[in-house]
Amino acid sequence: MPELRKDPIIGRWVIIATERGKRPHDFAVPKEETKNEDCPFCEGHERQTPPEIFAVRKSHSGSNSPGWKVRVTPNMPPLLQIEGDLDRRGKGLYDIMNGIGAHELIIETPEHIANIPDLDVEQLSQVFYTYSRRIQDLEGDKRIKYVLLCKNYGQSAGGTRIRHSVTQLIALPVNPKRVKEELIGARRYYEYRERCIFCDMIRQEIQTGSRIIERGDGFIAFAPYASRFPFEVWVLPEEHSCDFYTIKNTRGLAAIMKSVMRKLSVTLQDPPYNYIVHTAPFRRMASQGFWKTIDYDYHWHIEIMPRLTKVAGFELGSGFYINPTPPEDAAKYLNEGIV
Amino acid sequence: MPELRKDPIIGRWVIIATERGKRPHDFAVPKEETKNEDCPFCEGHERQTPPEIFAVRKSHSGSNSPGWKVRVTPNMPPLLQIEGDLDRRGKGLYDIMNGIGAHELIIETPEHIANIPDLDVEQLSQVFYTYSRRIQDLEGDKRIKYVLLCKNYGQSAGGTRIRHSVTQLIALPVNPKRVKEELIGARRYYEYRERCIFCDMIRQEIQTGSRIIERGDGFIAFAPYASRFPFEVWVLPEEHSCDFYTIKNTRGLAAIMKSVMRKLSVTLQDPPYNYIVHTAPFRRMASQGFWKTIDYDYHWHIEIMPRLTKVAGFELGSGFYINPTPPEDAAKYLNEGIV
Repeated sequence: MPELRKDPIIGRWVIIATERGKRPHDFAVPKEETKNEDCPFCEGHERQTPPEIFAVRKSHSGSNSPGWKVRVTPNMPPLLQIEGDLDRRGKGLYDIMNGIGAHELIIETPEHIANIPDLDVEQLSQVFYTYSRRIQDLEGDKRIKYVLLCKNYGQSAGGTRIRHSVTQLIALPVNPKRVKEELIGARRYYEYRERCIFCDMIRQEIQTGSRIIERGDGFIAFAPYASRFPFEVWVLPEEHSCDFYTIKNTRGLAAIMKSVMRKLSVTLQDPPYNYIVHTAPFRRMASQGFWKTIDYDYHWHIEIMPRLTKVAGFELGSGFYINPTPPEDAAKYLNEGIV
Repeated sequence: MPELRKDPIIGRWVIIATERGKRPHDFAVPKEETKNEDCPFCEGHERQTPPEIFAVRKSHSGSNSPGWKVRVTPNMPPLLQIEGDLDRRGKGLYDIMNGIGAHELIIETPEHIANIPDLDVEQLSQVFYTYSRRIQDLEGDKRIKYVLLCKNYGQSAGGTRIRHSVTQLIALPVNPKRVKEELIGARRYYEYRERCIFCDMIRQEIQTGSRIIERGDGFIAFAPYASRFPFEVWVLPEEHSCDFYTIKNTRGLAAIMKSVMRKLSVTLQDPPYNYIVHTAPFRRMASQGFWKTIDYDYHWHIEIMPRLTKVAGFELGSGFYINPTPPEDAAKYLNEGIV
């Protein structure tokens, strides 16, 4: 019999279609066209992008020239612009503000490498270090409330045809809806239990065991109990931490991410995917009620969503998800390398 | 400058990328393969589906034989099953219940017609009458809280290769998340203003004028102010009504839906789309606080979402939407037939 499972954080019910029980090879992963032109993100092509905002560089190399390991430039064209006032105002019933914010591209490697499993751990560690530095820097801009880091790999996941590994950074003057929902859900749980819901999930996942994809060096990866998507994976630090940018052990995160992404890539044959870093919003107004407990009740994590099914429109509209692969099965396929 | 606009009902912010300003021809609508085998939904092929649950029929025709106008059968395979107990229970942190519910297929025409604009108004009116009858019938089952009606047209919208116009009905033992959010948002507004937020939106849209796609016979169609998707259209009864199934004027709804769907089809060249009927949940517990005001504060409507962009994964994960076509432009293109 199919099951209805509830996400304990935001309270969403998901149908887990146990009887359909799709296996990895049941998903048709599209073969995608690639662009063979000169890649603007490769080392030596620095002139093809806008001037860099930040880079991890070898000691004697100069800005916008070779010698970098990770490089951050404005995204072109930007979704939001950095100059101007928010000018929040009403239009009758409606609310509007100017599209102020930042839109940056984090180029994850000077080499023409497409995907995370092919980066070495040291390189990937520098990528996560760059994430943390960019968030820290943007905290200085009082107009920004939230920094969204997301990766779109493959065209059906919103990626480009240029197969060079990048992350998008969008700095927003508002909190995304999903972040608000998580904060509210986590706070509610904390008020009742006086424990972090994510920490409790980690404990239960370790005890259950059947949904764990990977553990090591302070991090855990599991297929969440109420997965919305087949082969959805969450990666969390085992020790409580609400802000991504306070991360010290970027190497540990790199190791687990590389390992998880390799498993997904092998089992699902190089699937398109998105991942999103879920971190707490900036808390400059820490004295105000809402933000008081957030250090204790929110827990940063990365949500990885392979893009295997096409039904998102209905699901977008209703908020109701149908997942044809139970997360326990997904964990088994990934861990046993079953294709 | 791009704009951030807020949905007044559920409070979600959307980036309207005014400068990218995509026009209809900027969207690559995929040409889809079709299945040429015998269609199981055509008149005369009644044996190829499970026995019918309901049909609109000519007076002397018998069940599961030709002579019908609209026919409803169980969906195969069903997502949820109708027999059994809900057996809601906890598993540590998590909640689970059995996948009890109904999953039906509403076959909208005995002829092999693929899409709404090619159905005549009388036929489409019978389809909406069938929607209302099925909801009424399912209200009798006390395990069911909500009936979700949705249409997936085109494979990238989750439709099948059989190009015969159908609607899916999913009867759920829980309320979908989006429905809850709308109810909460609409109630909050009602408590403050003592007016229905949807009625107020209709008034403002009529006054503004620039987002209206169609009006007539008691219905209005407009591109919502904070559209998540390019060319998103909402259709509502102008007179306040919270339950879809109380509809009398199915002919008026058929006329406006046919007209809106024709405009979308012409301007966007037969795009894949989803539409979802948003109606109030069953209110058998009307005496309980939450449901008290719902007759006044919720307003049924249909949300039509053409599937033109690929970025849904990121948006699914963050709840943050980027719409490259301002709704005012979408309305203009649709109304002027600009391709």
